[in-house]
Amino acid sequence: MSDKNLKHAVGVDFGGTFIKMALVNERGTIEARARIPTGEAASQTAWIDAVETGARQLVAKKSLKLGDLAGVGVGVPGFVDFERGFVYDLANVPGWKSVSLGPRLEERFGVHIRVDNDVNAMAMGECTFGAGRVYQHAVFVTLGTGVGGALMINNRLYRGACSMAGEIGHMSIELDGIKSPQGIGGLEQYVGNRRIVERALTMLKRGRSSRLVELAGGDPKAITPELISKAAAEGDELSIEVFDFVAKCLASAFSSVAYLLQPQAIIVGGGVAQSGPVLFGPLRKHLAERLSPVFVERLEIKMAALGNDAGVIGAATLAMIE
Amino acid sequence: MSDKNLKHAVGVDFGGTFIKMALVNERGTIEARARIPTGEAASQTAWIDAVETGARQLVAKKSLKLGDLAGVGVGVPGFVDFERGFVYDLANVPGWKSVSLGPRLEERFGVHIRVDNDVNAMAMGECTFGAGRVYQHAVFVTLGTGVGGALMINNRLYRGACSMAGEIGHMSIELDGIKSPQGIGGLEQYVGNRRIVERALTMLKRGRSSRLVELAGGDPKAITPELISKAAAEGDELSIEVFDFVAKCLASAFSSVAYLLQPQAIIVGGGVAQSGPVLFGPLRKHLAERLSPVFVERLEIKMAALGNDAGVIGAATLAMIE
Repeated sequence: MSDKNLKHAVGVDFGGTFIKMALVNERGTIEARARIPTGEAASQTAWIDAVETGARQLVAKKSLKLGDLAGVGVGVPGFVDFERGFVYDLANVPGWKSVSLGPRLEERFGVHIRVDNDVNAMAMGECTFGAGRVYQHAVFVTLGTGVGGALMINNRLYRGACSMAGEIGHMSIELDGIKSPQGIGGLEQYVGNRRIVERALTMLKRGRSSRLVELAGGDPKAITPELISKAAAEGDELSIEVFDFVAKCLASAFSSVAYLLQPQAIIVGGGVAQSGPVLFGPLRKHLAERLSPVFVERLEIKMAALGNDAGVIGAATLAMIE
Repeated sequence: MSDKNLKHAVGVDFGGTFIKMALVNERGTIEARARIPTGEAASQTAWIDAVETGARQLVAKKSLKLGDLAGVGVGVPGFVDFERGFVYDLANVPGWKSVSLGPRLEERFGVHIRVDNDVNAMAMGECTFGAGRVYQHAVFVTLGTGVGGALMINNRLYRGACSMAGEIGHMSIELDGIKSPQGIGGLEQYVGNRRIVERALTMLKRGRSSRLVELAGGDPKAITPELISKAAAEGDELSIEVFDFVAKCLASAFSSVAYLLQPQAIIVGGGVAQSGPVLFGPLRKHLAERLSPVFVERLEIKMAALGNDAGVIGAATLAMIE
């Protein structure tokens, strides 16, 4: 049984592999979990059906009803008009263009619904219950295949003019840098997971020695950012250099973020952030070279604390407080 | 006589050459002006005396008394803690380190006082009564010896964690770029007035032909950004190239600003912005190459509208509404 004096919401994290769901209370505690393979919910209707079933199971586990919920929050991987709960387009999920997801879910569930970008949802989780909970002004960054971001300003998510703010991965770090559909020199083109691996492979091809290939079981194709971070932690020079470059690129973008917004903290999450000191050590060193002391002294760089739960906790939080 | 049904405030713009003052009403109209040579107000006490005398003259001209004012607002060239009216340091004015200017003025004037950074004051003027008045989310940039900036978020100035946000001039546009005390690759190191002139001079030294020297009366030392902009408008190729480079650097920083904050507009003021199409044409072209269409379509680039009055109007506005 759940403490009915606490507010509850269901958080939904729409990922490429799984739809993760959780019943979350107003203290940020997960009381029950559910997981649906995304492949089993291929159409919009199948998705909504699956999420409804999941939500009913979650509340039933704690002797609650859907009507007891403060709401259902959903984080989706793409552009969303938060006010209208409207999904413009999901980058890697076919069949999700121009979907009025909020209104459709509201009709189905009969409760308050919030739909937001998944990075905003994670930021909401981290800034309410995780590494950012003590700050009023924080920037959340997630490192993965892409680099996402979200802004917490005066204790509220700031979404910009059309719900598209926070695209730290597209901030330019090089005037005549790598081109992409989003522009020139975008951060993500230097520190996205694939770029990190490519950088290590290029150095290997040039004949640099490294323990990486051995760690990858002799197959360079098996090299991942996690493996490079592990090798760096063990003192592998090539891997340390790769992470130093990643840290330098991040520091360049973070210094721009700090000069522009002066947040109290930048919270870094996502797979590569799990590298710990191998990343955060050089990151702080490069930041000190790229920010004047008055800014460095007033900026915390923190590792995200909620891990893979940030998305569901944050989505639920959105439904509870926005 | 002034319309006593309207709110009035005195705005003070603390410049290196003049202390500019104006009596401003709530519609943003300047009703009276005063100007004090900064050299005549060299100590803090002399400055406060001069500003008091100026303010008394301004209100007297319109048959008002100091007590009729909604307040007095001051824009100063340096770091300020807005909440406390505390001046940390003024970059180019000796004797202004750690000054409780707000409280001291409040004691002297007996009215509501607001002290802010001069760029914030200009932004407040432009965003309330000038080029930014129709936007809720705008970024203000001023181009001069340095490059300053200020952020208008949800119709309010956003000052960051410690009143230091908006330093667009220090945002990095090159990973291994020009070093300065503020970091590496800072925008200001590429498009500050002196850098613009240096760039033209370097091209001239390399033997490039240009009408610039002729326009400068034969003396390359007399070349200014204004002259380069004039030559560019007349079709001078070297000058056009210089402005194209300035536009490219600005576009790089502006694309980062747009991806991070997604403002509705970026308002560009300061001397170089007066160049008009010579700057704004290439700026829009480079931005279109550096931002994805969904962002370009939703971003206005505008020339500031209040010219040299932005500072006093904005300072007075700060006193009226904050």
